[in-house]
Amino acid sequence: VIALDANGADRGPRNVAEGGRRAGVPVTIFGPAAELDGFDGVVDAPVAITNDEDPARAVRAKPDASIVQAARAVKEGRAGGFVTSGSTGAALAAGLFHLKRMRGVHRPAVAVRLPIPGRPVLMLDCGANVDSRPEWLVQFAYMGAAYMEAVHGVERARVGLLSVGEEPKKGTEEVVEANRVLSDGPLDFAGNVEGDDIAGGKLDVVVTDGFTGNVTLKLLEGTIRTLLDVVRTEISATTTGKLGGLLIRPAARRLRHRLDPDTYGGAYLLGLRGLAVIAHGNSSRTAIANAIRLAARGVEHDVVGRLATRLPQRTEVV
Amino acid sequence: VIALDANGADRGPRNVAEGGRRAGVPVTIFGPAAELDGFDGVVDAPVAITNDEDPARAVRAKPDASIVQAARAVKEGRAGGFVTSGSTGAALAAGLFHLKRMRGVHRPAVAVRLPIPGRPVLMLDCGANVDSRPEWLVQFAYMGAAYMEAVHGVERARVGLLSVGEEPKKGTEEVVEANRVLSDGPLDFAGNVEGDDIAGGKLDVVVTDGFTGNVTLKLLEGTIRTLLDVVRTEISATTTGKLGGLLIRPAARRLRHRLDPDTYGGAYLLGLRGLAVIAHGNSSRTAIANAIRLAARGVEHDVVGRLATRLPQRTEVV
Repeated sequence: VIALDANGADRGPRNVAEGGRRAGVPVTIFGPAAELDGFDGVVDAPVAITNDEDPARAVRAKPDASIVQAARAVKEGRAGGFVTSGSTGAALAAGLFHLKRMRGVHRPAVAVRLPIPGRPVLMLDCGANVDSRPEWLVQFAYMGAAYMEAVHGVERARVGLLSVGEEPKKGTEEVVEANRVLSDGPLDFAGNVEGDDIAGGKLDVVVTDGFTGNVTLKLLEGTIRTLLDVVRTEISATTTGKLGGLLIRPAARRLRHRLDPDTYGGAYLLGLRGLAVIAHGNSSRTAIANAIRLAARGVEHDVVGRLATRLPQRTEVV
Repeated sequence: VIALDANGADRGPRNVAEGGRRAGVPVTIFGPAAELDGFDGVVDAPVAITNDEDPARAVRAKPDASIVQAARAVKEGRAGGFVTSGSTGAALAAGLFHLKRMRGVHRPAVAVRLPIPGRPVLMLDCGANVDSRPEWLVQFAYMGAAYMEAVHGVERARVGLLSVGEEPKKGTEEVVEANRVLSDGPLDFAGNVEGDDIAGGKLDVVVTDGFTGNVTLKLLEGTIRTLLDVVRTEISATTTGKLGGLLIRPAARRLRHRLDPDTYGGAYLLGLRGLAVIAHGNSSRTAIANAIRLAARGVEHDVVGRLATRLPQRTEVV
């Protein structure tokens, strides 16, 4: 069973619940029962934590908030993981407060397998933290590598550190220091990588701070969307193009589906002692359903357990 | 005349000089004469400043370095502007040392008109600085707006501040503080914007720190390249698709040309008392030629003069 937080989503609780219905996975929905008639497995939880509140304070002050109840359900074994499309800060705070951090983890990170063709790349942190400390970046590298190796069968994950140049001295102080530590460690470390290396097919993991990661992820999604629209417009500009467009339509559909952020739906919040999946605030029903499936796969593959057994040996060096 | 620095480019000085020949603009080439036989207007300047050196120190220690000579040529009126595809740090240091900052400018910024379809967006800083201070971000906003209004005829530039959420409290301390100052100022300020707003068609200027801007720009270029390749591969996978692909080829070519970073070639280094254009280290000859044309347009439109007259009245509030 996956605990589904129905509050805080841009398109309202019914849209989230509809995603839950479509997922093909048993869910418990924590949300306002008054707005959710017709759905099974609803636990009335009308209290929400908004983006405007201080997450840590709100999680303590509102023990009945839907995200807090969802996190508790995971802690108490009533659910294998939780999914939310509300405030990332609230999800993180609820996770830290109720699920706790894994042994040795400074900060959890939002880890997203990017919608990039070819070799799948895991980018973290995509927004759990806005600040960046060298030791956090180092740990994101180990968490990302452990995840790709334990869950996705990558033999030895190749890890790059996002910066503004390949030279070890390029970047902010935090990046330069993280580069130094990672270079001395046992990871298959590619050193600093640049923005165009993300889609370059040579990496399994890209490490960055939560600010840059979040901006980057959203830009990537926005660019893919805009670009596919532009391709369509440009093609439709001439009659020949239109005919060509008809012929390539199946290919275009496959591509759009493969690159659509809705297809991956959500991101793991790695580093907690329980499974948490974050979805975009404006997630469609399809995206919510896919985020729930991602959580279910996480339970099935024991993402948390495997990361926990793999991480300590990895983080000794940190 | 544009001063062209032929050192420091990934593809060597001859490639840069060839770009200079193709630009259709008179250039003085500062580079190793021994490697540049057959080119006109070469001033022998074999000394280069590499990415591994401390830029400020190197600029002082090597007065004969090609980038330093190019900057001096601008200062002394022998050239209207300089173009370099060498180290950005060295270009910045040479600019600061010889051209000096404009009155009231804390830090120059690399400003790029993004290769995004639709409304052109100026993003700054794309890599002149790696650190971020609130007052720099605020000033980038005013410089960007002044540039778009003075040079590109935008009536009142709409400016967004890149962050991880729209709420004014979202983001790093620096971003939150810059948001507060900009909200109280006279700019048409859109507040915090997110990664997917960059290509959203609602902004004229996107402000961010040099680290995020550089990563973002390179990601954007990389994604566009990868995506267009993927479209081609996907289309070619079936016979029908291939036929369709033939029919849309002219449209695809137009699009590729429009979105190709080579087409814009370079970026202005705004905030100096002289015109400076930065091109990618791995620029093709076409990209170099376009960067030179960008510099020539900058001279023609008096980018520096117009920015200088417009900026003081703009920065009173900073």
